[in-house]
Amino acid sequence: MVLLQILARRSSRPRNKHRLSPLSSLISRSFSQLTSSQSGRSSFGIAFDIDGVVLLGHAPVGGSTRALKRLYDESGTLKVPYIFLTNGGGFPESKRALELSQLLGLNIYPSQVVQGHSPFRKLVNKFENDLIIAVGKGEPAVVMSEYGFRNVVSIDEYTSYFDNIDPLVQYKMWSTRQESELGHSLEKTSSRDNICSQRVQAAFVVSDSVDWSRDIQVLCDILRTGGLPGREMGTQPHLYFANDDLEYQATFPTERLGMGAFRIALESIYNRIHRNPLEYTSFGKPNPFVFKNAEDVLKQLVSSLHGNLHVVDDSNSGSHHFNTLYMVGDNPKVDVRGARQAGDPWFSILTGTGVFKGRDNHDEFPADLVVDTVEEAVDYILRKECA
Amino acid sequence: MVLLQILARRSSRPRNKHRLSPLSSLISRSFSQLTSSQSGRSSFGIAFDIDGVVLLGHAPVGGSTRALKRLYDESGTLKVPYIFLTNGGGFPESKRALELSQLLGLNIYPSQVVQGHSPFRKLVNKFENDLIIAVGKGEPAVVMSEYGFRNVVSIDEYTSYFDNIDPLVQYKMWSTRQESELGHSLEKTSSRDNICSQRVQAAFVVSDSVDWSRDIQVLCDILRTGGLPGREMGTQPHLYFANDDLEYQATFPTERLGMGAFRIALESIYNRIHRNPLEYTSFGKPNPFVFKNAEDVLKQLVSSLHGNLHVVDDSNSGSHHFNTLYMVGDNPKVDVRGARQAGDPWFSILTGTGVFKGRDNHDEFPADLVVDTVEEAVDYILRKECA
Repeated sequence: MVLLQILARRSSRPRNKHRLSPLSSLISRSFSQLTSSQSGRSSFGIAFDIDGVVLLGHAPVGGSTRALKRLYDESGTLKVPYIFLTNGGGFPESKRALELSQLLGLNIYPSQVVQGHSPFRKLVNKFENDLIIAVGKGEPAVVMSEYGFRNVVSIDEYTSYFDNIDPLVQYKMWSTRQESELGHSLEKTSSRDNICSQRVQAAFVVSDSVDWSRDIQVLCDILRTGGLPGREMGTQPHLYFANDDLEYQATFPTERLGMGAFRIALESIYNRIHRNPLEYTSFGKPNPFVFKNAEDVLKQLVSSLHGNLHVVDDSNSGSHHFNTLYMVGDNPKVDVRGARQAGDPWFSILTGTGVFKGRDNHDEFPADLVVDTVEEAVDYILRKECA
Repeated sequence: MVLLQILARRSSRPRNKHRLSPLSSLISRSFSQLTSSQSGRSSFGIAFDIDGVVLLGHAPVGGSTRALKRLYDESGTLKVPYIFLTNGGGFPESKRALELSQLLGLNIYPSQVVQGHSPFRKLVNKFENDLIIAVGKGEPAVVMSEYGFRNVVSIDEYTSYFDNIDPLVQYKMWSTRQESELGHSLEKTSSRDNICSQRVQAAFVVSDSVDWSRDIQVLCDILRTGGLPGREMGTQPHLYFANDDLEYQATFPTERLGMGAFRIALESIYNRIHRNPLEYTSFGKPNPFVFKNAEDVLKQLVSSLHGNLHVVDDSNSGSHHFNTLYMVGDNPKVDVRGARQAGDPWFSILTGTGVFKGRDNHDEFPADLVVDTVEEAVDYILRKECA
């Protein structure tokens, strides 16, 4: 009765991939049976994209709650090493883990959440005491502050120190919900003069910009003056983006514009008003280092949870070897392309609950497996790993 | 003592133009002397740009109040035909005239205000009963409604009918100050279904977009679906911009991004997510038809004010001939370029209180005359016309 079609991996294109037929109702073996039968026999891990795979907006999608529960034993202890690997962000990993735990009814560790901006923490040494600007929804300055940057100011706060920098401000009634962030930056009482006279050394787009007209304007001001808005031209400070997603699937029927669209807007305008083209670095999937980093994070998870995990066959995370790492995503250009570029041991599974709406496989970036939902993906993985 | 340097007009480039030295304090003849000495002898008119010439933000600049007062007689009656020719907008001409009257202490007629969107009224016949969307700060739907469009909805209102169309809305606390506009569109009680199922036939960017992320998203939704957001791809509806100003001078020391920057952002993103490149029409200076239209408006002004104006030498506005029309602007690429392209009888005067900050003349679009302020421009005009 089981309709699984196991596909040859990493064969050269064109690969004849087929959708996995719905089979969650056909699975009869429980997770406890699976783990007891496979203990120590293989080593695998899973990276789940969030938006369009596990959640649509704030609602679970594709049976994600049931699917993820199967990665825990009956007492709620994690049995299969998995992480969330998202290009999204805006909040510290600890806060995002708490939110996901509540939405999915699971106990998710902060170390299981890898966001688009998570690699920014590796740049702390470069900018530790420099004035840097954090852009985006949520709490971008808190995120950077928790990574260890000591002189970070959100673009909301930074803008507030420059009179008339945003000519449209009279038409905006922004909430000041990011005021809680102010404590993470310089002393408020003396900061205005300090900040306006300090050269911004880098701008980090941590999450999706909310106020594009202001953020593009202020970033252009920072970038073309060498970090001193309103002054003469200067060398462009560094600019980092947490991801380069052109579009992503949210609750609206068609995709919504993401950080990649914001980058295109900023770059197109900057290159019209400035002689030298914009220079920047984008993180996030599909960059191969994101998958290398995800592998490291999964190894550390295995190490920290050693004893709980039935699939672990050695205790040293540095030398731990995964036979297979599954990337479960909804976006062929981001998730599948990234897993393909990363190569062994990554195996890509494409779901149909998000960006990808095709019937068969994606033409340009075909996944190793196409399923309807994340629940089917987990069915497949557990079945295969216990075969 | 007078340092005026009258320059040969419309000679081929390079033209050796010089700045006009400050001389307002040297002018000894009063306006009443000027008009009495010149009555019926010549015919000229003036078009003033507003931002960076007459106002900086909401404050008069360059002696604009004194300068404009000289175009009226002692009883406050208009003696020299002049208009404001701005690429800005967002409010009906009547409202803008009232605001300018208050800021400048003069009695300015609505017919003296030509805004970027004023030519939109000529498209009423094309879209009279079609659903059209009005974008921008101020009261864009009121503007379009007063032009005669019968089925116009602001993008603020339009967006409110589509759940989740703006994924960033939770981070925005917009005021609902444009609610007064709702009365100008369809009946509110039945409008949601009506509007969502009606195909948008055109989008008009009336004034600067305030919420770029939402407006670019919703315009992409409208444009790529043929006017039905969330549905299948369709033929692109018409798209009109009131101007294409890349930057303009406001109160901040360096220029601010304008509607041209918004157009670049929208176009760059649209062309990445859609197969066919964006098609649009931009109005506003420097388009030559704007200057032809300004000439017509000045002729009508002469006609309506016949008897007051000393400079008028015939009463039929259709056959009225201006020897010289002065364009007083701060932006070489917009004001000077436009006047040059329009040709006879336009004469361009470039002020130094706005976008242009050079010492001599602009290299690419040299003006017929360069002055420091609008007051010097009026000094020059009145002196020349009364010579």
